[in-house]
Amino acid sequence: MRESELLAHIYARSAGAMPPGVLVGPGDDAAVVEFGGRRVIATVDQLVEGRHYDPESTPVDLIARKAIARSVSDIAAMGGRPTCALAAASLPADCRFADDLFDSMARWAQHWTCPLVGGDIATTAGPVVLSVTALGEPHAVRGPVLRSGARAGDGVYVTGALGGSLASGRHLTFEPRLAVAAALCGALGGRLRAMIDLSDGHGRDAGRVAVASGVRIALDAASLPLHDGVTDWRSAAADGEDYELLFTAEGAAPGNVAGVTITRIGVVLEGRGCVVRTPDGAEIDAGDLGWDHGAS
Amino acid sequence: MRESELLAHIYARSAGAMPPGVLVGPGDDAAVVEFGGRRVIATVDQLVEGRHYDPESTPVDLIARKAIARSVSDIAAMGGRPTCALAAASLPADCRFADDLFDSMARWAQHWTCPLVGGDIATTAGPVVLSVTALGEPHAVRGPVLRSGARAGDGVYVTGALGGSLASGRHLTFEPRLAVAAALCGALGGRLRAMIDLSDGHGRDAGRVAVASGVRIALDAASLPLHDGVTDWRSAAADGEDYELLFTAEGAAPGNVAGVTITRIGVVLEGRGCVVRTPDGAEIDAGDLGWDHGAS
Repeated sequence: MRESELLAHIYARSAGAMPPGVLVGPGDDAAVVEFGGRRVIATVDQLVEGRHYDPESTPVDLIARKAIARSVSDIAAMGGRPTCALAAASLPADCRFADDLFDSMARWAQHWTCPLVGGDIATTAGPVVLSVTALGEPHAVRGPVLRSGARAGDGVYVTGALGGSLASGRHLTFEPRLAVAAALCGALGGRLRAMIDLSDGHGRDAGRVAVASGVRIALDAASLPLHDGVTDWRSAAADGEDYELLFTAEGAAPGNVAGVTITRIGVVLEGRGCVVRTPDGAEIDAGDLGWDHGAS
Repeated sequence: MRESELLAHIYARSAGAMPPGVLVGPGDDAAVVEFGGRRVIATVDQLVEGRHYDPESTPVDLIARKAIARSVSDIAAMGGRPTCALAAASLPADCRFADDLFDSMARWAQHWTCPLVGGDIATTAGPVVLSVTALGEPHAVRGPVLRSGARAGDGVYVTGALGGSLASGRHLTFEPRLAVAAALCGALGGRLRAMIDLSDGHGRDAGRVAVASGVRIALDAASLPLHDGVTDWRSAAADGEDYELLFTAEGAAPGNVAGVTITRIGVVLEGRGCVVRTPDGAEIDAGDLGWDHGAS
């Protein structure tokens, strides 16, 4: 079973048992929990050596950067502002870069106004595993933007450009879309309906929005904004790790927000499922696109 | 270098850089961060297969229990009440108990009113590593109880009994001292000066309070409350993993709180360091006692 499916399966059973203070439980980009009336966004993500980065070629600073950026990107996907982070590291006993790694994680965490306030180190025989929990606050006016808010008639939009993340090294240097998310919350308010960050390919991740919202999403492959050098929209989907935002909005969205291009790539319909309309007119199930660690 | 020393070393450098909203940064049992005036306690801890439990003999439910309980114990050590938790798991690709493991973690988290609101699974070639972040709120009146509050003249106290945790299996079944901590906050208020949970042996952990508070602590070995079957106070220190609370208080503390015995085991003095006075009158540096994973 795929990791993400396993996790969804596990959480589906526990979702009904959440107490009232848990406003958003497992299954979105992050949870939202109330602390005496204040809403706190919380998310955890892992970075695994050999899986999410190549240990031979990746500088320690970029390992640290990606570990922090992945969790910060989840905060952005809720339209939130990061507050702090905690990092747990499993490291080989002979690891020489623990010191540099935590230094770099602390620096990148500060960079995204998300100071590292706690951590843990354990030595293991296994690969390096960095687990980063990020906390944040939702946009003061818009509130947290969930995966479940898409409605028939919304447009589907994506920030920036997609594809070639692994080959280009962008998966190590992407900028979490905090500024864009905040600007979208401010500009669109309640018209900003649903949002997710793209880690597993736009087709698969749009499919998650469709499932969470109980709608059908139709994406138009020809309209996908691709990075220079990326010519095949399928490979862009297969690579994943874009960490751009995909969102749905009622009515028009601006073409540029916080210096980042916004492109309309599809539409939300009544029904279920997520399809990609290919340039030759076929419809492909988005579940057959994209990328999932642990896929068998 | 020992793991805990490495972490302390790493965090010592970053401690000065914390923004004003971070009331307690790295280095205590947990961090305390302000969210619009509400204080949130946050901590992360890891449970590693073969290190913190024996994979051959430990039921999945007790692996899950210990993973949650360790982080909940950190919340208790701040005098806090848990609010929610997030769990990240690194599991072997052929792991058959992921489902049961997350089920059990969710159940134990609920048990300690700390619902699992988020998670992540990654398959690796390495050992099972469970990383649990727990969030909580400090006691409404007393506020968070730090390691740094001990003052000369305080008594040093411990909850429950110590020793034999590994041999007895108590390290898998201990009860995080949430109720005791809350009752101590209520009963002692500002007289409850400093607190820590005992994971690495009372000597080593008391030493951490001494360092954080800038005081000297003298423990009396003869007064240590030992579990039935534990006859040697040194072995009690060496085992660690008691997860009882050690605290300092101005004036007398009650002998029993929330059904748990409280024992006075030492005194806080002017100066630096932490010593254990042995039954034969010698003074041993507490740094030479106790247990630290990764000690060389």
